[in-house]
Amino acid sequence: MSNTTTLQLEVEKAKTSKINEVDFDNLAFGSVFTDHMFICDYVNGEWKTPKIIPYQSLVIDPSARVFHYGQAVFEGMKAYKDDNDQIWLFRPKDNFDRINKSSKRMAMPEFPEEYFFEGLKTLLNLDKDWIKKGLGNSLYIRPFVIASEPGVMASPAEEYKFIIICAPAQAYYGGEVRVKIADHYSRAASGGVGAAKTAGNYAAQFYPTKLAKEEGFQQVVWTDANTHEYLEEAGTMNVFFRIGDKLLTAPTNDRILDGITRKSVIEIAKDKGIDVEIRPVKVNEIVEAAKKGNLKEIFGSGTAAVITPVVGFGYKDKKWDLPKLTDAYSSVIKEAILNIQYNKSEDKYGWRYKA
Amino acid sequence: MSNTTTLQLEVEKAKTSKINEVDFDNLAFGSVFTDHMFICDYVNGEWKTPKIIPYQSLVIDPSARVFHYGQAVFEGMKAYKDDNDQIWLFRPKDNFDRINKSSKRMAMPEFPEEYFFEGLKTLLNLDKDWIKKGLGNSLYIRPFVIASEPGVMASPAEEYKFIIICAPAQAYYGGEVRVKIADHYSRAASGGVGAAKTAGNYAAQFYPTKLAKEEGFQQVVWTDANTHEYLEEAGTMNVFFRIGDKLLTAPTNDRILDGITRKSVIEIAKDKGIDVEIRPVKVNEIVEAAKKGNLKEIFGSGTAAVITPVVGFGYKDKKWDLPKLTDAYSSVIKEAILNIQYNKSEDKYGWRYKA
Repeated sequence: MSNTTTLQLEVEKAKTSKINEVDFDNLAFGSVFTDHMFICDYVNGEWKTPKIIPYQSLVIDPSARVFHYGQAVFEGMKAYKDDNDQIWLFRPKDNFDRINKSSKRMAMPEFPEEYFFEGLKTLLNLDKDWIKKGLGNSLYIRPFVIASEPGVMASPAEEYKFIIICAPAQAYYGGEVRVKIADHYSRAASGGVGAAKTAGNYAAQFYPTKLAKEEGFQQVVWTDANTHEYLEEAGTMNVFFRIGDKLLTAPTNDRILDGITRKSVIEIAKDKGIDVEIRPVKVNEIVEAAKKGNLKEIFGSGTAAVITPVVGFGYKDKKWDLPKLTDAYSSVIKEAILNIQYNKSEDKYGWRYKA
Repeated sequence: MSNTTTLQLEVEKAKTSKINEVDFDNLAFGSVFTDHMFICDYVNGEWKTPKIIPYQSLVIDPSARVFHYGQAVFEGMKAYKDDNDQIWLFRPKDNFDRINKSSKRMAMPEFPEEYFFEGLKTLLNLDKDWIKKGLGNSLYIRPFVIASEPGVMASPAEEYKFIIICAPAQAYYGGEVRVKIADHYSRAASGGVGAAKTAGNYAAQFYPTKLAKEEGFQQVVWTDANTHEYLEEAGTMNVFFRIGDKLLTAPTNDRILDGITRKSVIEIAKDKGIDVEIRPVKVNEIVEAAKKGNLKEIFGSGTAAVITPVVGFGYKDKKWDLPKLTDAYSSVIKEAILNIQYNKSEDKYGWRYKA
C-alpha cells in the first residue's frame, strides 16, 4: 500500500482562447496573460482544493488585509520551449522554497510542494501554445500569495489566496540601462524584509527610481541604509561588478534577495575559470576602478532580466560610461544560462526541469 | 461670479441596511462595515467622478500592482457623536495631508481636498446611525488608495482607486498591553518608507510581533535598524515614556510616522505644564530608569488606540513591570483628548471638525 495521495486538482477550461488577439512580436512585459490561472484558497487553517480556472478578475472585500497591510509575497519564473516543443523550467524548486521563505517572514502560511508543482505543470500544459519557441521568448510565470481575509485589524490574516498567472514575454529591458548608485534613499533595513520577495519592497523603490529616471537612469543600485558605502542590489536584479578580470558581488543577507539567477551566474562564472569574489563591495572601490579604467563591466541578474549589461552609472553628481567589450563576462555567462534554459546544451547542474 | 465649482458626487443608496444584524456591544475592531463606501477612480491622469455606493467587494484583475508591488497607502480616522447627535471628526485635515504625503512617497497621485471632505461628510451622514453615542464608541474611518492597474511590470501604476470604508468601533485594545523592545528585527530603514502610512510597513511587523506574542508581549517597540539603541515607534502607535515627571518621545524622521494623536498629546501635555522632551530616547535610559524605579509610565498614542497605557516591557531576556499610578499622565491626557473629540469640552486648538 502506498502512502502517496492523489492530488485533487479541479480544472475548468476556458471556453474560448484569447491567443489570436495577441501580437507576440510586440509584447510589453507582464501586460498580457494566458487563458488560465491557478488558484488555491487558504481557509480554516488549511489549503483547500487547488483549481485551474479561466483567467479572471478577483472578487475581494475592500477591507482585505492585502490592501491595507501589504501581506503579499510573490515569485518570478519562466517557462521555455525547446525545438521539440518540450517545455522547461529553470530551478523551480528554488522559487518554490523561496516563496515559502518569504511567506514565513510575512507571517503567512507555507504552500504544499505537490500543489505547487502539479498546479504549475497542469497550467503550463493547458496554456502551452502561449509559449513561443526561439531564444528570448518565454512565458513569464508569476506565483503570488495575498491575504484575502476581510478586516482592517493590523494582524496576520487567516485567509489567503495562492495564485499563478502567466504572461508571454520577450526580453525584459529594451534599450540601454544606466544605473544610479543610491546615496540618500534606501530599499531595506537590517532586520527588515529586504530578503523577502514581498510586495512592499517594490513600491518603496518607485519614487526614488522616478527621481533617478529624471536624471537619465533606468534603475537604482541600492546601498546599505546605514552608511550608503556598500553596494547591495538593484531592486529587480542582483548586481555584479567586473574590476580587471575579477567578478565581484555582494553576499546575500537579510536586506538582499537571494537571487536564483545570481547564484547560477556565480556557479557558471567559476566553472569558466573566472575569479569570483563574494564579499561586501564598496561604492568607492567601483568609483576608483572607473576612474582608473579598471571597471570593465556592471551587470544585473534576475529572472525577468536574465542578465542585463549596464552601460554607465552615476554616483552623486558624477557619471561614468562603461567600455563596450567584445568578450564581456555578461555575454558569455548569459549565453551559458540561456543554453541550459532552452535545452540547447548539456545541463551538468541539473537546473533544467521538464514541465 | 464665484470661482467655486460644485462637486459632482454620485450617490447610490443601499436598498437595505445591515445595521440590525450588528451587535454594537460586541464589536471586534475593524471587522464590521457600514452600509456604504466612497470610491473614486484615477484613470488617464485624473480622478474621475467620486461615488458613494453600497458597501461591496472590489473586482480587480489578479495582475493589479497592489497585489504584487504593494503600491498602497491608508489613513485611520474616527467620527464621534455628541449628546446632540452631531457628528465630529478630529483634525481630519491632518489625515488628508498625510495620505497625500504618503502617496507622494509611494509614487502615487495626490487626491483633491474637496473630493475627500465632501465624500467623507456625505458618507458619514448617510451612515450616521452606525455612529453610537457614548465615550469609547466611534466610527473608525479607513481611507485608502490602491494601485488597481493590471500588469506585473515593476513600475508605478497609472490607475488607482481611492476608497473610504467605515467600521463601528469600541476601544481598540482589550486587556493589558506589554511591549517588547526590538533588538534584532526592524521596522524601517533611514531613507526608506517608515514615515509613510503604506501597506508594506505593517505586514513587515507581523512576524516579529508574532514572536513577541509568544513571549507574552502584545506589541513591539521598534528601535533604529542601525544600532537598536534608540526607541522609535510601536508600529500602530507612537510611544511616550515618563521618567520622573518628564515626558519623553522620539522626534519624527523618515522612519517614524508623524502621528496626529502624538502631536495632540505633546500639545496637551505642554498646556498642562508637563515637561515634554522631544529628543532621541535611548533604550538604556529607559532600562536604567526602570531599574531605579524612575520609569513611571510608557504609553502609546494613535487613532485606533487613542492612548494605550503599557503595563510592562521586555528587553532582551529581562522584563519590567510599570507602577500603577492614580494620577497617570496617560489618563489625564486621554481624558482631555476624548473631551475634545466627543464635544464635551471647549476646543481651544480648533481640532474638532463638524461632519
